[in-house]
Amino acid sequence: MKTFKIGVIGCGSIATGAHIPAYKADKRAEIAYFCDILPERAQAAADAYGSGRAVADYSIVLNDPQVDAVSVCVPNNLHGTIASQALRAGKHALCEKPAAPTYAEALEMQRAKAESGLILNIGVVNRFNDSVNKIRDYIRGGRLGEVFHVYISFRSHRAIPGLGGAFTTKAVSGGGVLIDWGVHFLDLVMYCCGDPAPLTVSGEVFSRLGRDIDGYAYKSMWAGPPVPGGTYDVEDSVTALIRTSGPVLTLNGAWAQNIGEDEMFIDFMGDKGGIRLNYGGDFTVYTAEHGALASYVPEFPQRNAFETEISGFLDCLETGKEGPSGIDTAIITARIMQGIYDSAAAHKELDLT
Amino acid sequence: MKTFKIGVIGCGSIATGAHIPAYKADKRAEIAYFCDILPERAQAAADAYGSGRAVADYSIVLNDPQVDAVSVCVPNNLHGTIASQALRAGKHALCEKPAAPTYAEALEMQRAKAESGLILNIGVVNRFNDSVNKIRDYIRGGRLGEVFHVYISFRSHRAIPGLGGAFTTKAVSGGGVLIDWGVHFLDLVMYCCGDPAPLTVSGEVFSRLGRDIDGYAYKSMWAGPPVPGGTYDVEDSVTALIRTSGPVLTLNGAWAQNIGEDEMFIDFMGDKGGIRLNYGGDFTVYTAEHGALASYVPEFPQRNAFETEISGFLDCLETGKEGPSGIDTAIITARIMQGIYDSAAAHKELDLT
Amino acid sequence: MKTFKIGVIGCGSIATGAHIPAYKADKRAEIAYFCDILPERAQAAADAYGSGRAVADYSIVLNDPQVDAVSVCVPNNLHGTIASQALRAGKHALCEKPAAPTYAEALEMQRAKAESGLILNIGVVNRFNDSVNKIRDYIRGGRLGEVFHVYISFRSHRAIPGLGGAFTTKAVSGGGVLIDWGVHFLDLVMYCCGDPAPLTVSGEVFSRLGRDIDGYAYKSMWAGPPVPGGTYDVEDSVTALIRTSGPVLTLNGAWAQNIGEDEMFIDFMGDKGGIRLNYGGDFTVYTAEHGALASYVPEFPQRNAFETEISGFLDCLETGKEGPSGIDTAIITARIMQGIYDSAAAHKELDLT
Amino acid sequence: MKTFKIGVIGCGSIATGAHIPAYKADKRAEIAYFCDILPERAQAAADAYGSGRAVADYSIVLNDPQVDAVSVCVPNNLHGTIASQALRAGKHALCEKPAAPTYAEALEMQRAKAESGLILNIGVVNRFNDSVNKIRDYIRGGRLGEVFHVYISFRSHRAIPGLGGAFTTKAVSGGGVLIDWGVHFLDLVMYCCGDPAPLTVSGEVFSRLGRDIDGYAYKSMWAGPPVPGGTYDVEDSVTALIRTSGPVLTLNGAWAQNIGEDEMFIDFMGDKGGIRLNYGGDFTVYTAEHGALASYVPEFPQRNAFETEISGFLDCLETGKEGPSGIDTAIITARIMQGIYDSAAAHKELDLT
Repeated sequence: MKTFKIGVIGCGSIATGAHIPAYKADKRAEIAYFCDILPERAQAAADAYGSGRAVADYSIVLNDPQVDAVSVCVPNNLHGTIASQALRAGKHALCEKPAAPTYAEALEMQRAKAESGLILNIGVVNRFNDSVNKIRDYIRGGRLGEVFHVYISFRSHRAIPGLGGAFTTKAVSGGGVLIDWGVHFLDLVMYCCGDPAPLTVSGEVFSRLGRDIDGYAYKSMWAGPPVPGGTYDVEDSVTALIRTSGPVLTLNGAWAQNIGEDEMFIDFMGDKGGIRLNYGGDFTVYTAEHGALASYVPEFPQRNAFETEISGFLDCLETGKEGPSGIDTAIITARIMQGIYDSAAAHKELDLT
Repeated sequence: MKTFKIGVIGCGSIATGAHIPAYKADKRAEIAYFCDILPERAQAAADAYGSGRAVADYSIVLNDPQVDAVSVCVPNNLHGTIASQALRAGKHALCEKPAAPTYAEALEMQRAKAESGLILNIGVVNRFNDSVNKIRDYIRGGRLGEVFHVYISFRSHRAIPGLGGAFTTKAVSGGGVLIDWGVHFLDLVMYCCGDPAPLTVSGEVFSRLGRDIDGYAYKSMWAGPPVPGGTYDVEDSVTALIRTSGPVLTLNGAWAQNIGEDEMFIDFMGDKGGIRLNYGGDFTVYTAEHGALASYVPEFPQRNAFETEISGFLDCLETGKEGPSGIDTAIITARIMQGIYDSAAAHKELDLT
Repeated sequence: MKTFKIGVIGCGSIATGAHIPAYKADKRAEIAYFCDILPERAQAAADAYGSGRAVADYSIVLNDPQVDAVSVCVPNNLHGTIASQALRAGKHALCEKPAAPTYAEALEMQRAKAESGLILNIGVVNRFNDSVNKIRDYIRGGRLGEVFHVYISFRSHRAIPGLGGAFTTKAVSGGGVLIDWGVHFLDLVMYCCGDPAPLTVSGEVFSRLGRDIDGYAYKSMWAGPPVPGGTYDVEDSVTALIRTSGPVLTLNGAWAQNIGEDEMFIDFMGDKGGIRLNYGGDFTVYTAEHGALASYVPEFPQRNAFETEISGFLDCLETGKEGPSGIDTAIITARIMQGIYDSAAAHKELDLT
Repeated sequence: MKTFKIGVIGCGSIATGAHIPAYKADKRAEIAYFCDILPERAQAAADAYGSGRAVADYSIVLNDPQVDAVSVCVPNNLHGTIASQALRAGKHALCEKPAAPTYAEALEMQRAKAESGLILNIGVVNRFNDSVNKIRDYIRGGRLGEVFHVYISFRSHRAIPGLGGAFTTKAVSGGGVLIDWGVHFLDLVMYCCGDPAPLTVSGEVFSRLGRDIDGYAYKSMWAGPPVPGGTYDVEDSVTALIRTSGPVLTLNGAWAQNIGEDEMFIDFMGDKGGIRLNYGGDFTVYTAEHGALASYVPEFPQRNAFETEISGFLDCLETGKEGPSGIDTAIITARIMQGIYDSAAAHKELDLT
């Protein structure tokens, strides 16, 4: 069995909580480098893993001919640069989602990938979630008939992450709730529906609840307490209507809104049946049989999606074949998100054909 | 106290269940005519009321100089013709919703009204609902701050009315769930938000679940059982995104869909607070005070909205002043609905400015 | 950053469970002495903290010129003596509640404080509770209008602490449920209502359920099992009516009573709104808006009140400014409690003006 | 069997809903007169009863030598005058509660009764309630030991009756919630505790929530809708502390308050046991047996208290003996209520010995 030498670039929470343990769980991988601009973070990750070199400069990783592949776990605004450099240095790459803050950067990553002939997967981890793959099976198997409309809801009462910090600074994150949560929901829908082509997009984004950093009321906050005097120039809510070569998509999303019902779900509406997915959990199938209405929650074992994602990446390295999360499909979501931001700026629908 | 002589044109369920009892509860009204093309329906209504003449031809009503006003309770496709004729015959009119199946007809009704100098109210009864008026007070009073987004949900699992009959025949009804339910939701939102001007509309309508009349599975059906071999050429679901001079509106509606959660509500999202109205019932206010999140369900006595609507109509007759449901505000909803149908036909957004 | 050297005098549960961990959590404090007449208790506290000297005689602490301030965590009957000596020795003091068992002793403490020009805070920790401070904000912000009546209920079915021991021996504790629990409830109310002046007090105290130490039925007992042959000469329940320059206060309290409903709450009744505080927990706001009744439970993050109290004490040391729990406001509660005991002894109302 | 001829003076809801049906249920009574200043009310009552004469002038009733006794069901301000005149005319009387709006008037009624040698019962109907009599049995039987404290709670969120009308006009009703509800609660407690003598009373009354008749928010209203421009000069809430030769009484009452928990109960606290009575319903006994805590809800058949009251009145007529609701015991409650009003006016405690 061949072992792949891996470099992990960026040792924040997505690296230590997801990528590193998942590599550890697959015998085909050996992490050779832990890289972070904060040397102590790199060292802590290496210590926890038990081997590997901690470095602050990622060019050391890219220049080491022993390294087969890298995980890119840096802030969104550096995804494109580092992933492209990695590919040009001959390394396969698994880059965290979103591909890039803008569609233009994502296109460049796609070009770098094509030129290199290597693997470039995007961390759209839902493509490795078991519920999501079951739904894809149901749709492909015809149980829903034609899926003509999908309603996507990622609305929370109070969940702005690290208000005033990196998440809410557009220059670093590229955007707010759409790019942070929306990428997952949209990519999941595209995947289940066979990656249809977007035709039109009309959307609006709102930046209202996080503007007054001191006055923002909340119960708890992920990614640290509010930063007084920090930056908040991203959207906290979004709505859009997207026509595709498959279903019409309607979406509402909010990191924060003055409605207290957290509603995190996706409704796939077909003419023969429908599915509501409770995001991150189970799903209900609604259909009719013999003139009677029927609904049920399928039960099956759920695996750790990050482990499946990393195994899938190692499969690609082993076989040289594209997996389900390659840049070529993930880029469609980037195009839609860019379309929503552009439509919101113009206050009118855009034609994407 | 002056008493107004009323003619009720159309004696179906909206007349016998709502208009006639409400006139009876107001001492200023006396119903002089009960008119229906089915003479036995007219007679039954007169008998139940205890006085008044039953007729089959509405021109008898319009030609009687004693009659002050009429209630128009006929199918949608006749609203425009009869209401306009009534006005030209010198009668005030209360016309059931929607104003008309098309915006063009609604505009003609508005013209007839303007020329006559009389009252023409549309039966957008939610403008007389106590919860709705409280919400309007909250918004006008500033409790929500600026309302920037409204999400409108009128989605039912199985509720196509009289499948194959008048409701599902476009030539009679003018449309499906949008014109039947959507008119109420949209008009209510426009009313609460101060009747803003529509700017763009992008929508899609779907006619999937009612097509196979024999195969339609359901638990119960309002307005009669399915009509085998009947007509079904209207939409059973709809989605749209509407920009206005006030909030952006996103809507999802379905008479029938393969998702079992009946979701009939409206979310008003403001920067200081928000409200979820459970359509036809109470509402929850979400806000923040002194850095704490607060939500509550206001409690107050609820009156019968049809009685308030009819009293409001009689107030207009008495004072000559316009009330909240005059054609001039109700027509905005007609314009939006027409926009959704037109946008759906063109598969692209329309500019309404 | 200046570091303050602290002496903790008394190493019982309020010291080890509240003061010491809170000092540890604030970088400005360093505990130099752990003092207790039981040397092993002092040593255990020092060991747990990791540094500092364990002593049995508090004069060692007061005579060390390095010590800036002390926490007084001894039984109630020693509060006055030790706090006053500390002030006279030039140490700031945070003295556990109640200030003293009698109003006369509290006045002496106030005098010692005034003469020293130092800080003397009383451990009325509710003044640092986040719910309590929110309620104070609501009242000051006008949401309740004028608060004209407050009902204070601290009634428990069976909760006499350490029956027969220090808590139930008047010579040590100064009293029963009024001085143990009532001090918290009364002080909290005074604080929220802007520390109004007491005008009249009429009260009765009852010592019925703990008299028969062997026969006392209970489910569990805090502060140790009953002491057969011990002392029980304090009240187990109390009722009083107090007029102030602000609201009228009515109170019922019981360590033990033959009513099984534990009712621990405070009702603030205003002419525009009201609040029920569930003691130690959340609170509900009741009000009316736009003619509708509204009630809700505000949600917000809750901090550890002991940490906030200790930080507040250190703020006082740093700035030399009085905080919310200085003896000058805390003494009003002492005066009311003394009034209740005196009124109960005389079986008539007392004028406190 | 002797039959007593009865005159019912005042035919409002307490007469038609309680007295008249109860007389009808007892074969010893025959109602000869129905008297009301509104002749149609008198006639309607007579028609419903099936016999008897309807009159508008009560002197007709008092002058008829056939009449044995009268029920006095007129507004509070006329109780004294009519009951005294009836006694002087040789008629036994059952007078609705409260005896009179002031203690002075109640004393006059007592004098008229004493001079006449006839029966004068007051409609303190709880003295005939089966739960109340069971509680009296428990207390007399020693199950609670000595009852040393009673807490009386008659607090409602929104229940002002007929705001602006007779109930809220002091000249007619004599007072608000204390005289309307408090009389029942206080009298019940006095009865259960053996009619102890009042020693001191300290109280305050508040008239805050009903003052703004137009702005009063409510869910429903008994005794008619608000009267715009009507009178509101009574108290909507009350608190008091009363020492007696038996237990100390603490009370809180409100027709309306900004606390939403309706709390209608009485706690009898004894040294051996206690009872919570849910007013108008069942009760729970709390006690200790064999060192274990025990609580239970006694179950027994409940009779109609009004029928028992009327039968008791007829028993008095038959035997000439005093029953439990004679003026001599009912007057104690009048004295306490007067004391609360006087103490509230003086803002200090009164000595009633």
